[in-house]
Amino acid sequence: MTQIVLAVHGGAGNLTRKQLEYPGRRGYERGLADALRSGQRVLLKGGSALNAVTEAIVILEDNDLFNAGKGAVLCADGSIELSAAIMKGNDRTAGAMVGLKRTKNPIRAARSIMGHAHSLLFGVGADDYAQSKGLDMVPADYFSTPFRRRQWQKLKSKSNAVLDHSDDQAATGTVGAVARDRRGNLATATSTGGMVNQTPGRIGDTPIIGAGSWADNNTCAISATGTGEAFARNVFARRVADLVEIGGLAPLAAAERTLDDIRRDKGVGGCILVDAQGGLALPFNTPHMFRGWLVGDAPPQVAILADEQISID
Amino acid sequence: MTQIVLAVHGGAGNLTRKQLEYPGRRGYERGLADALRSGQRVLLKGGSALNAVTEAIVILEDNDLFNAGKGAVLCADGSIELSAAIMKGNDRTAGAMVGLKRTKNPIRAARSIMGHAHSLLFGVGADDYAQSKGLDMVPADYFSTPFRRRQWQKLKSKSNAVLDHSDDQAATGTVGAVARDRRGNLATATSTGGMVNQTPGRIGDTPIIGAGSWADNNTCAISATGTGEAFARNVFARRVADLVEIGGLAPLAAAERTLDDIRRDKGVGGCILVDAQGGLALPFNTPHMFRGWLVGDAPPQVAILADEQISID
Repeated sequence: MTQIVLAVHGGAGNLTRKQLEYPGRRGYERGLADALRSGQRVLLKGGSALNAVTEAIVILEDNDLFNAGKGAVLCADGSIELSAAIMKGNDRTAGAMVGLKRTKNPIRAARSIMGHAHSLLFGVGADDYAQSKGLDMVPADYFSTPFRRRQWQKLKSKSNAVLDHSDDQAATGTVGAVARDRRGNLATATSTGGMVNQTPGRIGDTPIIGAGSWADNNTCAISATGTGEAFARNVFARRVADLVEIGGLAPLAAAERTLDDIRRDKGVGGCILVDAQGGLALPFNTPHMFRGWLVGDAPPQVAILADEQISID
Repeated sequence: MTQIVLAVHGGAGNLTRKQLEYPGRRGYERGLADALRSGQRVLLKGGSALNAVTEAIVILEDNDLFNAGKGAVLCADGSIELSAAIMKGNDRTAGAMVGLKRTKNPIRAARSIMGHAHSLLFGVGADDYAQSKGLDMVPADYFSTPFRRRQWQKLKSKSNAVLDHSDDQAATGTVGAVARDRRGNLATATSTGGMVNQTPGRIGDTPIIGAGSWADNNTCAISATGTGEAFARNVFARRVADLVEIGGLAPLAAAERTLDDIRRDKGVGGCILVDAQGGLALPFNTPHMFRGWLVGDAPPQVAILADEQISID
């Protein structure tokens, strides 16, 4: 029986030590730890990595501090469009959804289409499919929070060139999870509301298999966060896995090299990764990445800045 | 000055020699040759690979025999949703559009968003963006042809399980082009109407950078066609390039090995590929792939079955 491993992220961005001196940071830490505990319960009972990453992501989607599910950022027209992807490493089946507006938990929608003839849907067809599978549907205003509306209005008023903003919050808050279960199977899940003030219809890296997500028992499970266009254009997650599988690199080295490619492409961000041997890596090239991890029945560890690590009981 | 190279495809599928014994096959041959000549004119004048693949695809989109632009297949609800992607190999910028319903030439829409802050849009936002860039917009019935309506009605009447059909025509007709220009720059472009009777909202591999399309001057330019879900799940085009770049395989061997992965994943199809040295490969694992190619100012060559090759003057 292999050791269980689980990691989550809540997005990467430009928060500084100074900006983190506020009581609210405890909320992020608790949110990450709650997600880890939820996935840990699944894994300790002998549940699958797929179930563990699903349940961890549901916790983060339901937590309005993160940019996924409830509390997602607003598009330029004030609407909210949610995307998610999920993949398992034993048979590399995958599912993903783009631009959901009514499905409470986008990750459950992505999961509901795994292994079917179609595995990626966008827009109205995506919500309709999720509804036909019996998933919880909510009115559009369920997702919206006062903080996200203020953030959007501030950004709109600051800039006419809304497409080209570089707001600190823009790349922050996507959530992800990777896990290895007792059978040694890997899985990954990622969910996002996209970028603040994005053009309606924008697709980033999150719902693209091989860009924001990848899982293969032969190499690793990866969930990425950051400048979506750069991660998508570089096919980030599949590239990391190819550097491991074809190039023989260690997973951390492969991820760091590919993050260097992203930086050369004017992108920033990070990823979480668990490999076939249970090794963990959580590299990022931004000042912060909300992240957490655990091994076996040990308590969750969470961290925000590069040099931080906090044990949560 | 390097030799110019151009290849196009019009989809892969299960047509047999017997089925090809009809006068209509000349239409496909001429369509492929017209597209090749259009791209060749661009390249011989010293134009870019990017312009050449764009103009070649426009010809195929406007030709109602192929499943892209005019003549695209119908979704389960009788609607038409068009997707396209384009990428250039010198800086690996890319653009893609998903689910267009009003833009006459999807490949021009994909190109219009290359290099912008967002590089992939779906649905209404995608058509709106294309319109804002001054592209030709058409009424929805522009794309529909009597042949495609009959094909859709026949499939609908044959099966209740419309999601799981395996109609011979389903994977046929996506169009693609790859080119190398006089400066040695590579580019790729792909455009599709998806699968006959697909669930509205389905996204296949075509608009996904790294799945249906990839271009990098260091390795090759690739355009794929076939079972979209399998090509997307395997991140086909980026995998081929990684096998060349990281693994040192010849492009044809890399493409054939990755097509074997697709077949193991119950997928079929093929791709066209031009490498940095101007080498061409057009492998497929189906009975036919509509395809054509040319080098320098030589006349277009076209082929349909595996053992065919026809010179067109």
